[in-house]
Amino acid sequence: MKNFVYESPTKIIFGKGTELQVGQEIVEKGAKKVLLHYGGGSIKKTGLYDRVVKSLEEAGVSFVELGGVVPNPRLSLVYKGIELCRNESVDLVLAVGGGSVIDSAKAIAVGVPYEGDVWDFFDKGIVPETALPVGCILTISATGSETSASSVITKEEGWLKHAFRYDRIRPTFAILNPELTITLPAYQTASGGTDIMAHLMERYFTNEPNVDLTDRLIEGTLQTVIKYLPIALKDPENYDARAELMWAATIAHNGILDTGRIGDWASHRIEHEIGAIYDVAHGAGLAVVFPAWMKAVYSHDVARFVRFFHRVWGLEPDFWNPEKTVLDGIAVMENYFRSIGMPVTLEELGVPDDRLEEMAEKSNWNGPVGQFVPITTEKALEILKLCRGHI
Amino acid sequence: MKNFVYESPTKIIFGKGTELQVGQEIVEKGAKKVLLHYGGGSIKKTGLYDRVVKSLEEAGVSFVELGGVVPNPRLSLVYKGIELCRNESVDLVLAVGGGSVIDSAKAIAVGVPYEGDVWDFFDKGIVPETALPVGCILTISATGSETSASSVITKEEGWLKHAFRYDRIRPTFAILNPELTITLPAYQTASGGTDIMAHLMERYFTNEPNVDLTDRLIEGTLQTVIKYLPIALKDPENYDARAELMWAATIAHNGILDTGRIGDWASHRIEHEIGAIYDVAHGAGLAVVFPAWMKAVYSHDVARFVRFFHRVWGLEPDFWNPEKTVLDGIAVMENYFRSIGMPVTLEELGVPDDRLEEMAEKSNWNGPVGQFVPITTEKALEILKLCRGHI
Repeated sequence: MKNFVYESPTKIIFGKGTELQVGQEIVEKGAKKVLLHYGGGSIKKTGLYDRVVKSLEEAGVSFVELGGVVPNPRLSLVYKGIELCRNESVDLVLAVGGGSVIDSAKAIAVGVPYEGDVWDFFDKGIVPETALPVGCILTISATGSETSASSVITKEEGWLKHAFRYDRIRPTFAILNPELTITLPAYQTASGGTDIMAHLMERYFTNEPNVDLTDRLIEGTLQTVIKYLPIALKDPENYDARAELMWAATIAHNGILDTGRIGDWASHRIEHEIGAIYDVAHGAGLAVVFPAWMKAVYSHDVARFVRFFHRVWGLEPDFWNPEKTVLDGIAVMENYFRSIGMPVTLEELGVPDDRLEEMAEKSNWNGPVGQFVPITTEKALEILKLCRGHI
Repeated sequence: MKNFVYESPTKIIFGKGTELQVGQEIVEKGAKKVLLHYGGGSIKKTGLYDRVVKSLEEAGVSFVELGGVVPNPRLSLVYKGIELCRNESVDLVLAVGGGSVIDSAKAIAVGVPYEGDVWDFFDKGIVPETALPVGCILTISATGSETSASSVITKEEGWLKHAFRYDRIRPTFAILNPELTITLPAYQTASGGTDIMAHLMERYFTNEPNVDLTDRLIEGTLQTVIKYLPIALKDPENYDARAELMWAATIAHNGILDTGRIGDWASHRIEHEIGAIYDVAHGAGLAVVFPAWMKAVYSHDVARFVRFFHRVWGLEPDFWNPEKTVLDGIAVMENYFRSIGMPVTLEELGVPDDRLEEMAEKSNWNGPVGQFVPITTEKALEILKLCRGHI
């Protein structure tokens, strides 16, 4: 187990009706004027927007608003948000939505007090000095952005999708009401659930020995997601299933499952390149990339993969032929993804295979990706080709 | 799953050599003068005291000190600490030791700014308005006090042992170096490990349905402790085993495994009464009480106990006779406790059975205890009698 520092100060307010506490929570944080940041407007259809505004007004919090965040959130809207916050002297950014909205809010929050171009943080590794506080009301169980210190933004010019990490953009509070996810389309529920699973698997596949406790915590969280995702799809109004998924999404990504170990993250980096060009749902892209990545790297540590498919997916290990257990396991996982309506090939994802070289190269813009096995441009291309499926 | 608020802001600094960061950490928290609070002086023998003092001096942090905390920490020393902090204008209480030292530090921290008697918080349910910040360097994996918001203090007059909870006594930082536990006597290692197990089991046995994720996280943490405790006993210098136990102790009690559920805590309350009179090691007392409590209550939810002994202890369920699985499981657990040198009867604990009525009554000083099954005075007496073993 490696030395580590763990700090996850986000206050989590979880459960039915909790969005009505948002105004009070902002007052407690000492903020007076917020940027209300959201996506395509579904929060207006569901009535969430009205409940949030009511709570803000009752608490005496004033606000300006900026909607229009899209999946794979764009840098141009971040610039707009920064300008608006500066002109209106906003002192907290409130994200109401999913991971894209929260990521966009984080980028705005760190951009407001910075004199240079906010993209510097994503592109040049410049370390910020401060940021506005961020709060959020989550509407989809997926990215874990609600307690994470990271943000992923896409720059339209060149379709560059880069991630950035800074402790002070971690939300100061996160309101998690599983009821808000009941109206999600099935595809988004499944894609979000797949993203949670991917976050857990990225952490699971590590070269660090002696991390049994976090191994087991990851396994248990993954088993929970695997169980409840089909239940939520079959019975969208099942609060208990929605609640398990929402809490699992947060635990998967709040840092506790990283402690003492180094995760992989190559699959995410490769998927980012697909998402940057083709604008696919992040989780759907991961359902395609992750099995391909596994096929390309499992021989690096067969035992870890056997234990994974045994403990998490319930496969009986073939002790004479452990590699068979792994390949069987990958097939079981692919079938699971198909059963929840996710694609497992590029074709099923709606992505042509004529720009694989370009994506492989872009994945390595900053050198090989992945900690479990370093994925070079060549290896990334091998994985992307495997994403075409059994051809 | 119940609605909940989860906030665990303690900064955890985990790993080898981390005690050398204490001075810097205190400076970052803005404190200038600390109370260095510790136990019987083992930290002087091991050299830890010198390393801490050196780190404080190098960071320019001045300090006064108060040693002498004993297991089942006493109110009289808390009073002394409060007076010392007031006279010396201390602005942070630094606990260097185990749960008793940290609990004592917390009581001092909340007592300093309070005009009345600090025992009011433990006895009368008075809610404090503020507290000094607390930091800690942990030397035993056990109570989880390093990130918890609670403190247990014993008042010598009447030997009353009461717990108290307040968010602002939660340590602001916790330095966890597993190396510091290598010199612990075997009995303390085993007793500490049993305490961790008890914290997990107190949370596991709940009446709240639909808490699958936290069930699984508790199971995984418990499996880790069960595996590594015998390894640490056999090979005390095994860093990896010590590290798993230390991180498990913290996760067991930092609040994340409480989310959405209500734990039981009757066994702790009953053990407190034994500890208050006979001053036994807390974990050893729990090794006696927990199996007895299980025998007295398992019929309330046989299925939960079967799943517990199946998933955590590896027992094959007897589907025709689930009660047999439970009783077999309790026997397996008792054998485990014996194998790590823990007592499982009052006699083995060195406690006579002539004051059981008194303990049963005191456990109910504030009404029946326990949430899974409410334990009245009568039921507490039944459990205490079961603690005598198979007589």
